[in-house]
Amino acid sequence: MSNLIENGSYVLIFLDSKRNWIRKVIEGETFHSNKGQIQYDDLIGAPYGRVVKSHSGILFQVHKPSLTDIQTSMGKNARISTNIIYPKDAGTILIEGSIGAGSEVVEAGTGSGALTLVLANSVGSIGKVYTYENRDDMYQAAKKTLEKYTSAENITMHKKDILEGIEEKDVDAVVLDLATPWEVVEHAFVALKPSHHFVSYSPTINQVIRTHEALQMQGQWGMIKTLEVLQREIRVKPNATRPKTWMVAHTGYLTFARKLCEGYS
Amino acid sequence: MSNLIENGSYVLIFLDSKRNWIRKVIEGETFHSNKGQIQYDDLIGAPYGRVVKSHSGILFQVHKPSLTDIQTSMGKNARISTNIIYPKDAGTILIEGSIGAGSEVVEAGTGSGALTLVLANSVGSIGKVYTYENRDDMYQAAKKTLEKYTSAENITMHKKDILEGIEEKDVDAVVLDLATPWEVVEHAFVALKPSHHFVSYSPTINQVIRTHEALQMQGQWGMIKTLEVLQREIRVKPNATRPKTWMVAHTGYLTFARKLCEGYS
Amino acid sequence: MSNLIENGSYVLIFLDSKRNWIRKVIEGETFHSNKGQIQYDDLIGAPYGRVVKSHSGILFQVHKPSLTDIQTSMGKNARISTNIIYPKDAGTILIEGSIGAGSEVVEAGTGSGALTLVLANSVGSIGKVYTYENRDDMYQAAKKTLEKYTSAENITMHKKDILEGIEEKDVDAVVLDLATPWEVVEHAFVALKPSHHFVSYSPTINQVIRTHEALQMQGQWGMIKTLEVLQREIRVKPNATRPKTWMVAHTGYLTFARKLCEGYS
Amino acid sequence: MSNLIENGSYVLIFLDSKRNWIRKVIEGETFHSNKGQIQYDDLIGAPYGRVVKSHSGILFQVHKPSLTDIQTSMGKNARISTNIIYPKDAGTILIEGSIGAGSEVVEAGTGSGALTLVLANSVGSIGKVYTYENRDDMYQAAKKTLEKYTSAENITMHKKDILEGIEEKDVDAVVLDLATPWEVVEHAFVALKPSHHFVSYSPTINQVIRTHEALQMQGQWGMIKTLEVLQREIRVKPNATRPKTWMVAHTGYLTFARKLCEGYS
Repeated sequence: MSNLIENGSYVLIFLDSKRNWIRKVIEGETFHSNKGQIQYDDLIGAPYGRVVKSHSGILFQVHKPSLTDIQTSMGKNARISTNIIYPKDAGTILIEGSIGAGSEVVEAGTGSGALTLVLANSVGSIGKVYTYENRDDMYQAAKKTLEKYTSAENITMHKKDILEGIEEKDVDAVVLDLATPWEVVEHAFVALKPSHHFVSYSPTINQVIRTHEALQMQGQWGMIKTLEVLQREIRVKPNATRPKTWMVAHTGYLTFARKLCEGYS
Repeated sequence: MSNLIENGSYVLIFLDSKRNWIRKVIEGETFHSNKGQIQYDDLIGAPYGRVVKSHSGILFQVHKPSLTDIQTSMGKNARISTNIIYPKDAGTILIEGSIGAGSEVVEAGTGSGALTLVLANSVGSIGKVYTYENRDDMYQAAKKTLEKYTSAENITMHKKDILEGIEEKDVDAVVLDLATPWEVVEHAFVALKPSHHFVSYSPTINQVIRTHEALQMQGQWGMIKTLEVLQREIRVKPNATRPKTWMVAHTGYLTFARKLCEGYS
Repeated sequence: MSNLIENGSYVLIFLDSKRNWIRKVIEGETFHSNKGQIQYDDLIGAPYGRVVKSHSGILFQVHKPSLTDIQTSMGKNARISTNIIYPKDAGTILIEGSIGAGSEVVEAGTGSGALTLVLANSVGSIGKVYTYENRDDMYQAAKKTLEKYTSAENITMHKKDILEGIEEKDVDAVVLDLATPWEVVEHAFVALKPSHHFVSYSPTINQVIRTHEALQMQGQWGMIKTLEVLQREIRVKPNATRPKTWMVAHTGYLTFARKLCEGYS
Repeated sequence: MSNLIENGSYVLIFLDSKRNWIRKVIEGETFHSNKGQIQYDDLIGAPYGRVVKSHSGILFQVHKPSLTDIQTSMGKNARISTNIIYPKDAGTILIEGSIGAGSEVVEAGTGSGALTLVLANSVGSIGKVYTYENRDDMYQAAKKTLEKYTSAENITMHKKDILEGIEEKDVDAVVLDLATPWEVVEHAFVALKPSHHFVSYSPTINQVIRTHEALQMQGQWGMIKTLEVLQREIRVKPNATRPKTWMVAHTGYLTFARKLCEGYS
């Protein structure tokens, strides 16, 4: 991917952690904020990482949007912010779900597409993400988001309720962000390779308890565990270093399990 | 990669979260624990995910070791456990450092090789990890570890002090786990693509403060931030669900920054 | 203290954790909110704990303000919220500083008076709180607050800079919330009974480090430790129990030490 | 209370946060540890806060045991450590339960007596603690503990199951640490003054949910909330300051509610 900003590129225009925006660079148009304006023409042809001065003299950084930038931006714009899986949870999903370059992953629901982007970036052109979304409005919105930020060649979108079954077989991970993940435990078992990874994200402890019940009832899952991840930002100043005053106290619990195979000696 | 256990495969033999071991399957040999023995010959040819009964009647799960299993196992065996970057921090490094399939990443020091494995799995065959280690004993031990768990084709090991400079150019991320990361800020700047990612892991707040000073003094870094990540496990039981009693309170702080480019309009 | 609301009583008018107010009941006057009005005359003579319906049909609880209610209310109204020591920290100060009924405690600065109230309530009529405040505006405002919520008979206010010395001797605890607590370590040593408690609250880690240096330089302090306290609220609903989304990530660090006496066998 | 160590006094002999012991000073006897011996005769008549050198040259601090020292010591010696309410939770109980000098408090079960001590110290000679314990062995052990560390004049011990009812009326707080706190909600309502404080400590979320159900079913409780408290220790060293590696991740949840009175205008 080019390191020069082009007409049509998406950029992160960054002032500080609260005031930053992802925008599409359009020839002849202008970025407006209450800290001044920037002519997009001044960005075209410049490298990402450029610092530009608005017409009112404020310095903005212009970056290539990272996945975290995109997730954070989608979170800020979401009507219900917990609908977006946060970077702290996405990182844990990748690591504990053993997802990396070349993995084949099933995801449901697609939702905003924010986690789909993370998974697609992780598995790369040599992997595959299959994502299920039942609601038409969500499906269409996610489709637009995915086309905006990725070539999407490694993503297959299903407009379908995953409760009706998973079409894929022998996948490396099934990642669920659903109201009733326990109803998909059986389908996930059929779709996964042995020893591979079931992952479920749920905001409430009641959902976690029911998911554990389903995993344990089947008796065919091992290494079942549930984690919660807290992330705190430190404000570093030479003589006044301290954690920031506020933090997100809770997004969701992450439940992991691995498929066992039948029969033992 | 095959899903059948072979002679020479590494397996995770799992009883519970405290009693589990990574072992090499060797034809004709036996796994010993105080919960009974398992004949490796009973595993060869079986799929990963198998449940086996030891001669004393205890059930063990046999899994393909995931990266988290390997990190956790290396952590348990390390003389100083904080020498191993924990999964919770590794996930955040990948996500906040925008590391995924195809990324080119510089790492120093190699240390145990635990993070190198995570990075190599993440970037895959279409990416590259360049890792620097000065100490000969560490270098040799890490080399063995990397050969044990990965084909290592996408890893280049430098037996060299990164304080002397980074050989690579235009990389996507520089990831540091060093006593004096502030001494590498300048080298990282030269090695990185604009708008790309500096990442530093440090146990003490004093290291973080000095690293920020170096990043700010140069005046060529943007979006500087420091995070700490806490992870808590939930013990889920139908009528007695609660977090576990103990958790890791601190491993290290993670500092992130992005390279700016010179000159502005 | 009477359990009936009187003309002139302070009450907490409570709708939920965000919408609640401490108000003085005044005969003939009316409480106004965007959820309706309450005639104070309807409260006079009623017991605390009363539920009243506003003229627009919304139910409000009317409680006797607890210390936590007062602290929380002062926190909401403070221009800089971290100026108020939070209940979570106040509880730890009492417990780790061994402050209880009958204790004699020195405090500085008085600040808003929120912690003074907590200390005075803890030591009771059989104990004593000596509080130092240098700034005239703070001193006057705290004086008003203390007179509003307590008989204040066990509180002695000094309008004086504690850096000039502590007048009291043989006290049980010295509790500091100052920009430069390390400058008071020597005075605290002189004022305290042997084996008794130095307590310092500081927002930044730099202040903590300097305070430890002062405590250690003197060589006359034992059991030095620093704690931070995090408090998370759980939203309990039959089928949707989870921690709240946001929490306070940091207020201050609490440093404790105990006075040693000179000479050993 | 005297500040000189006497024959028969209890002392905290302190080396560091892991190696410290509460011992009774007995004339002519010797304290033994693997860091050397101390003659109790060398302590008698000395002030608390004394530093003594063991016969093998190690320095020990000798303090008057604070409540936190006693709680921590009881926690270390308890067979099941979560049986002891930790200082972090005890502080929150005092503050959020508005318990201070002069309060009248009902507690159940007495358990080890650790929290009874904290409550008795808080309410002082002008307050009262009524504590209920059904199990004879617990009752006898707690009785001994209370006589050991306090004059106990403000404590009334009931050898009785609180599920059968609370004898006291018009108390300021009811503090429960029981397996089934929801069964005492009705009794607590009868015993409390209006607007005053119900407090319940429970290790599992299931207990919390049932307690909320009981509180809400009755419809006579207001300001219901549940908190969890985390405490982390910071290891402060001039050039290597960082939180300690391990912390207690969970002890129990604290649920608070206030008694409403019937009828509204």
